[in-house]
Amino acid sequence: MPRSRSALPASGPVRFGPGASAVRRPANASIEAGFWYSRQEINAHVSIPQGPELLESAGNLHNLRLAAGTIDGAFRGDYPFVDTDVYKWLEAAAWQLGRSHSDELAGEVGRIVALVAAAQQPDGYLNTWFQLVKDGRRYEDLRWGHELYCAGHLIQAAVAHHRATGGCELLDVAVKFADHLTSVFGPPGSGKPIDGIDGHPEVETALVELYRETGERRYLDLAGYFVDRHGHGLLGGEVYCQDRVPLREAKNVEGHAVRQLYLLAAAADLATETGDAELRAAGARLWRAMTTTKTHLTGGLGAHHAQEDFGDPYELPNERAYCETCAAIASIQWSWRMALLTGESCYSDLIERTLYNGFLAGIALDGECWLYVNPLQVRDGHTDQGGDKSARRTRWFRCACCPPNAMRLLASMEHYLASADDTGLQIHQYIAGRYGDGDGDITVRCETDYPWHGAVALTIEEAPTARVWTLALRIPSWCREFRVKCGSRAYDQTNAPLDGGWLRLEGTWSPGDRVVLELGLEPRLTMADPRVDSVRACVAIERGPLVYCLEGVDHPAGGLDDIVLDATAPLGVKHRPDLLGGVATVVTAGRRRAAADRGWWPYTPADAGPAPDDGEAVELTAIPYYAWANREDGGMRVWLPTT
Amino acid sequence: MPRSRSALPASGPVRFGPGASAVRRPANASIEAGFWYSRQEINAHVSIPQGPELLESAGNLHNLRLAAGTIDGAFRGDYPFVDTDVYKWLEAAAWQLGRSHSDELAGEVGRIVALVAAAQQPDGYLNTWFQLVKDGRRYEDLRWGHELYCAGHLIQAAVAHHRATGGCELLDVAVKFADHLTSVFGPPGSGKPIDGIDGHPEVETALVELYRETGERRYLDLAGYFVDRHGHGLLGGEVYCQDRVPLREAKNVEGHAVRQLYLLAAAADLATETGDAELRAAGARLWRAMTTTKTHLTGGLGAHHAQEDFGDPYELPNERAYCETCAAIASIQWSWRMALLTGESCYSDLIERTLYNGFLAGIALDGECWLYVNPLQVRDGHTDQGGDKSARRTRWFRCACCPPNAMRLLASMEHYLASADDTGLQIHQYIAGRYGDGDGDITVRCETDYPWHGAVALTIEEAPTARVWTLALRIPSWCREFRVKCGSRAYDQTNAPLDGGWLRLEGTWSPGDRVVLELGLEPRLTMADPRVDSVRACVAIERGPLVYCLEGVDHPAGGLDDIVLDATAPLGVKHRPDLLGGVATVVTAGRRRAAADRGWWPYTPADAGPAPDDGEAVELTAIPYYAWANREDGGMRVWLPTT
Repeated sequence: MPRSRSALPASGPVRFGPGASAVRRPANASIEAGFWYSRQEINAHVSIPQGPELLESAGNLHNLRLAAGTIDGAFRGDYPFVDTDVYKWLEAAAWQLGRSHSDELAGEVGRIVALVAAAQQPDGYLNTWFQLVKDGRRYEDLRWGHELYCAGHLIQAAVAHHRATGGCELLDVAVKFADHLTSVFGPPGSGKPIDGIDGHPEVETALVELYRETGERRYLDLAGYFVDRHGHGLLGGEVYCQDRVPLREAKNVEGHAVRQLYLLAAAADLATETGDAELRAAGARLWRAMTTTKTHLTGGLGAHHAQEDFGDPYELPNERAYCETCAAIASIQWSWRMALLTGESCYSDLIERTLYNGFLAGIALDGECWLYVNPLQVRDGHTDQGGDKSARRTRWFRCACCPPNAMRLLASMEHYLASADDTGLQIHQYIAGRYGDGDGDITVRCETDYPWHGAVALTIEEAPTARVWTLALRIPSWCREFRVKCGSRAYDQTNAPLDGGWLRLEGTWSPGDRVVLELGLEPRLTMADPRVDSVRACVAIERGPLVYCLEGVDHPAGGLDDIVLDATAPLGVKHRPDLLGGVATVVTAGRRRAAADRGWWPYTPADAGPAPDDGEAVELTAIPYYAWANREDGGMRVWLPTT
Repeated sequence: MPRSRSALPASGPVRFGPGASAVRRPANASIEAGFWYSRQEINAHVSIPQGPELLESAGNLHNLRLAAGTIDGAFRGDYPFVDTDVYKWLEAAAWQLGRSHSDELAGEVGRIVALVAAAQQPDGYLNTWFQLVKDGRRYEDLRWGHELYCAGHLIQAAVAHHRATGGCELLDVAVKFADHLTSVFGPPGSGKPIDGIDGHPEVETALVELYRETGERRYLDLAGYFVDRHGHGLLGGEVYCQDRVPLREAKNVEGHAVRQLYLLAAAADLATETGDAELRAAGARLWRAMTTTKTHLTGGLGAHHAQEDFGDPYELPNERAYCETCAAIASIQWSWRMALLTGESCYSDLIERTLYNGFLAGIALDGECWLYVNPLQVRDGHTDQGGDKSARRTRWFRCACCPPNAMRLLASMEHYLASADDTGLQIHQYIAGRYGDGDGDITVRCETDYPWHGAVALTIEEAPTARVWTLALRIPSWCREFRVKCGSRAYDQTNAPLDGGWLRLEGTWSPGDRVVLELGLEPRLTMADPRVDSVRACVAIERGPLVYCLEGVDHPAGGLDDIVLDATAPLGVKHRPDLLGGVATVVTAGRRRAAADRGWWPYTPADAGPAPDDGEAVELTAIPYYAWANREDGGMRVWLPTT
């Protein structure tokens, strides 16, 4: 049943301000069926509803009541940033209310917004840790205190709440806090008492969004000040805190991954709003350095457990890949801003890869448990004592940053799917639903069972009469074969006039016009740049946007640690609606190395040559990486040796 | 000039108690020339003498004065175990005084011993952190407090001081502390107030040594109690603290590497002193599991920066290898106890590998700086902000455990070279100097330029008249070709009657009798078990006991990250007395992959095949791993790709 354009949710995050220089704006969209619809439904009906109970039992709401003075007791939680779990949940719930109103959820949101408002101090400041544990000694520990980080998530939640529901209760709190910040922070000579930045960026994107929501330029200016004061030693020059070098001079991403990515997202926002060409160039340069040298196949980011940071270029470990779920989210947020800013398709290539792999793996299929870190390998018999960094899914974490972050991304996924400009509509991601250009002139319906099948049928539902405009389709960079039919036009990979990954179909369109895209989903083997030492002589299985992995549970006799893939064997696809909520598996062949007792020392003369190829033949069943760790414990591998 | 047997220093650490079941005892030895003599001289004349000044500037001695009440002020240092830096330095200085008396050093030792004694509380307790920072609240935080760990290092220092110099001043302090511990700690039902263990083992070996030094059985019993109470949940079951499972049931080493290894050294001590067969079997089982699955080629131990712990079996990363210098030291200490307990040569094989590689790499050639962690790879252009975990050598650390630990191991290296039993003398390590059987009946002089040259000439200097005894020589497990001449007997690898790595030469010996051993030092390429994913399709260069590496400084044009070794090229040896204090380099050939711009994504279809083999030919110069990071910053690699 066609829906009126008003049924499309408001676009956001990222809605440009009055002075924005970009010619592309985020379009709006609705997800109505298929792969991501199922994930959003679980998010709406399982993950988000269980939030308030978890925030209650972890003490986050208790702390707000303490700060409001309505109860007595001791602060609960181990970190100065526990308030953000509340704010991120509020943001998720707000976007969800924008997707589909629910009295019950709106009631929960209202109750918690009231708690937040009550905890705010008269001058706008709000941080339960500093109010309760640190005796109100504000801004004395900007490196570790996370006060502005918390402010940022509060502002983001407020913008979402206002943008999605029209409610002003939380926006009032956020504006009051933001106005307090503008009165406190500023460069030397500005007359403001503190020249400082937060060790954990986040307030910067939030302030830009608040500027977009309110039109108040001072928030944009404060964001710009914060972004540019990083890298000048205000935090001791620590790379962890993004203070070693200014972004404008940086050559590669570095330090704590989430901090780096949030800061870069803010830089992209600023470049968009102010036209700052240097900041735009820095973002493009750093994005490319990141993807070329510091990104896991899954889109996962962050190589180290210690420091949660990026490693050296090409340092991409598998079992110790950190790939924090929050970093995947931050990467999507930054890449989307770059996609809008530049129009280049590579940014949405990475968004697609990250959505289907590095991000989605962080969420259990049932929506009840989470992964904080997302390794690409778990050995047979891996010993795991649980905890935040476990390879087992966990219902909540001591540092619970990831679950509500994943909820807010899922609840706002519509915002990352399409863009619009004066030429028409650009479709970045293929989902079953509708895309609108945001002006209400154009609506396109999309029918697809992607990523399981490659057919994407696009039907024009609304279009301006007699105006020439362009429907641009992103041809994913992984795609080696495709066909497009559009009226009398027919293209494939041999003749399509691709423009940097975009197929631009120009014309006058009428309701009922159809474009059928068929993306080839033949499974493929992928290898890495030889500088990626961790996967030498290995390949990975991919199909469409999905990275695959082996799990021990599918290979019970002997586990995974001795498996060698036969790179010459065919790759078969089996659609398995019964498995893991419905997946396509990839089936191929390999062998399992014979066990050998090599004595007490595992290093032997190389001239003895490799062990004889006498392993038993084994059938290999690969599942999509995002679905791993949803059955019994066991090994897992993305990269498979071929020798 | 032959030296009288009395010139051989006293043996220790590890001197068996009256009830010891082992038939092998540590022999004594002197190191008089060559490779290790030079290292010991630097230790004696550079490293140890700079200790007091560093302990002064870091605040350790200041804290002792505070505790003694002789000055006022605030505690300095970040950790509750800073006292151990003093104790380990005292132990190093004591062994050094045993090697060679110096009035100046003895004066420094006496001055610091007096500080320690003055800081001790009347009931024997001593820990400046708890006395000064924790208001005397003892034993409330055994998991993190390190009080018994500190006690252990105090006791070890006291035993060394007494054993090496005869001085009782520090031993009196240690006995008083140990007696206090025996009055406080004991199992339920023992009437002792606390049933507890320390999160960081160390007191256990120390108490066994104190038992050996004093003959007081209660210290041995307390050590046994501590060892066996690990793994029963007294520390929350934390694997990090060696509390997940009792040693007797454990299947592999796990948790914090140094803690695990100190605990295992104590278990070996207990098995030796009490004949506990189960503990002996557990030690042998865990040692083999460790060497087979969790030991780097260098002998380095500990796979993770976060937690400083062992990883899964075969999880042996290169650039993020932790391989803490202290873990190499602990491994040597444990292996030596196992060598004495079992007589098996594999333990001394690992000691040799660790001494020449994983341990020695921790000490700068000039003896002034140190490495805390010892990676096997540093990428070209590695960014390093310094600090404890830096890949640059550092003069002292915030957590300064490693430098004085390395000093005490070097100063007591004589203790790890030979053993004796009723059958005669067993030579475990080949150094230029003398070995004695500890009873004064047998002295053997050793002349060698090992590890640079393979010839080892052994001359009997003293021997019992007309008694048949056996001179046993360890043939290193890396050695594929050797020759031995002993009077009319001549052996090589084809006909030597090796007994588990030992060549046992039985006979009646007279002063002047000679055995000449020639160990083949042809350089070799080594590969790893295929389960070691980190080095797939790579080899390492070794020569004799030395692991080699490439350094960027020797390959200035283009660095190391694109180098591929030609596994078929000959390996040449160049003796370079001018280089790095005098080393033999290994020279061979490879090529450097041509730079390729692969776009923004480093993962490509595998069926595109490998890049064409069009790299330029390069000459490769490998240096001993222990000597890396003594010139300008740059890359380093032990494992080299061959494809």
